[in-house]
Amino acid sequence: MSIPDKEITIYDIAKALNISAATVSRALMDHPSVNINTKAKVQEAAKSMGYRSNQMASNLRKRKSNIIGIIVGNLNSSFMSNVIAGAEKVLSEAGYNLIISQSLDNVSKEINIAQAMYNNRVDGLLVSLAYETENADHFESFVKRGIPLVYFDRVWPHPKCPGIEIDNVKAAYDITEHLITQGCKRIAHITAFKISSVAADRFTGYKKALEDYNIPFNESLVIKTDLTMNAGIDAAHQIMNMEERPDAVFVTNDACAVGCMQETKKFGIRIPQDIAFAGFNNDTEASIIEPNLTTVNYRGDIMGEEAARILIDRINNASAAAQPAKKIMQKSEIIIRDSSVKRK
Amino acid sequence: MSIPDKEITIYDIAKALNISAATVSRALMDHPSVNINTKAKVQEAAKSMGYRSNQMASNLRKRKSNIIGIIVGNLNSSFMSNVIAGAEKVLSEAGYNLIISQSLDNVSKEINIAQAMYNNRVDGLLVSLAYETENADHFESFVKRGIPLVYFDRVWPHPKCPGIEIDNVKAAYDITEHLITQGCKRIAHITAFKISSVAADRFTGYKKALEDYNIPFNESLVIKTDLTMNAGIDAAHQIMNMEERPDAVFVTNDACAVGCMQETKKFGIRIPQDIAFAGFNNDTEASIIEPNLTTVNYRGDIMGEEAARILIDRINNASAAAQPAKKIMQKSEIIIRDSSVKRK
Repeated sequence: MSIPDKEITIYDIAKALNISAATVSRALMDHPSVNINTKAKVQEAAKSMGYRSNQMASNLRKRKSNIIGIIVGNLNSSFMSNVIAGAEKVLSEAGYNLIISQSLDNVSKEINIAQAMYNNRVDGLLVSLAYETENADHFESFVKRGIPLVYFDRVWPHPKCPGIEIDNVKAAYDITEHLITQGCKRIAHITAFKISSVAADRFTGYKKALEDYNIPFNESLVIKTDLTMNAGIDAAHQIMNMEERPDAVFVTNDACAVGCMQETKKFGIRIPQDIAFAGFNNDTEASIIEPNLTTVNYRGDIMGEEAARILIDRINNASAAAQPAKKIMQKSEIIIRDSSVKRK
Repeated sequence: MSIPDKEITIYDIAKALNISAATVSRALMDHPSVNINTKAKVQEAAKSMGYRSNQMASNLRKRKSNIIGIIVGNLNSSFMSNVIAGAEKVLSEAGYNLIISQSLDNVSKEINIAQAMYNNRVDGLLVSLAYETENADHFESFVKRGIPLVYFDRVWPHPKCPGIEIDNVKAAYDITEHLITQGCKRIAHITAFKISSVAADRFTGYKKALEDYNIPFNESLVIKTDLTMNAGIDAAHQIMNMEERPDAVFVTNDACAVGCMQETKKFGIRIPQDIAFAGFNNDTEASIIEPNLTTVNYRGDIMGEEAARILIDRINNASAAAQPAKKIMQKSEIIIRDSSVKRK
């Protein structure tokens, strides 16, 4: 088959059907003045000839791209896959297409992606920050241009950008309290090297629970990592080398917790009897590792839908966009599994 | 801060710096005729004023969007995250942006995504088909318009569309042969409801190995599912209800294998002593489940890079695009873990 060397236009369709271009144009817009049979013929011809409504030109006139960008740290988690499915559902119903990009939790990659999204003139942006991101200056160009931006999960506080997150302080407090009520007194905490707001909030919740139960905070029980599964293996070695080992470990995400559990088990450590474990996110891995991992669960699909709805509202509604941005708290729940239950 | 109500143009920059628009234009294109200090001043002003090179208008003139689309079944696997990272690396170096979409392995969603990508005038498309896709008619519009399309992993044979995949027949043969050499004689196979080319090839490899070792193929040992982790749980119940149970199960993906293993263990089945297990893909879960799962490994990042390179070549090089499309076979390897080793 020969490759058509030019875009099919309404003039080509008009010529093929021997009718006027104006009639073709009206038929394609489903105008009431055009006979129903003619409409059917035009639509049939448009399809078979490979006509595309000139969306780019039309968008240029409207100054709209109908494209929404979403930037996430890493696509590889059931949570993030659910967020994207939720956002996509709401956005496609509203006629938007989604460009997805992953920063691989690297801040310089995140800066490049933000620039590319800006140049592609997205109509709005959904962002969950990379773990190592310490400021949001690279998103200021969107704010300046009045392009709505909504943060989710790993958010940045900004008067113009709403954020949806869970109460990380409370969830971390609750899970630490659960470990304390299981009789744990030396609770280690694995957190990020560069502490993002999410990791900082979880760290705060952990310390607050210790304080409320009169357990002195011990800096030597805090391990800083890049939170990958491999980092969990290294953390396990640090724990094994401690003079006095912890009786519980609260890890700020599941992937790192699972890596750490697998490695401590190789040293003959019994979970939860010797060391109890708790993670965060309820990733698939948490219910595969043995014993299953106690964790914090929150719904990605709901977070994605809600973020998309807020974004569309700010795009379409100037008065909504002019309101000071609110922080939205989504519900989360602790799921207690065998990795932490010392007292049955 | 007030939201600028119109796009910043080179005329605005010219006015602000009190120089000519022609100088601004040349400075932004890094033209040698412009003084280096002026260039710096223009670039600084462009940045602070929020100027964007008019990419959409420029693309319209060139009939290029610089956008590549990628459609995958599901973003939620370490394999697919690696494919995307590999493709993104090659594409961004070549100046393309990537639009990512997931069909959630649903064929009607895949059809809608293909149409949206077509309307957005992607310059090329990378596709891994949904599990349930049984033909590739919805991608014919790209072929007709001469928009290069490269399949990867779950490919569709097409004279105009190259495909990168692994030798699924051979990999499935090898892993079945491994189970046979471990002494297994009743090997069940869990495959897809709607058998895609990938699932069909693996099924073929399984049957071929049985034949070569004089083990009669037994239809009652074939279980058809949608290959999710939950489907693995259901499959486990089917296995438990068989009059004569299998001594091994070869599952066509890891997620379903892991679900099936977890559930059979609840019935007191010992793995691998009572039933050996093997999967496919080497997902993260395969090295978390106990015992660790024997599986087939192949590198997603390499597949993504290679697919992107072939696509760019066909976009830029009319003679490459005119060549009949080849099928490219990527290497894969069996990783033997404890789930299948009966003879040590």
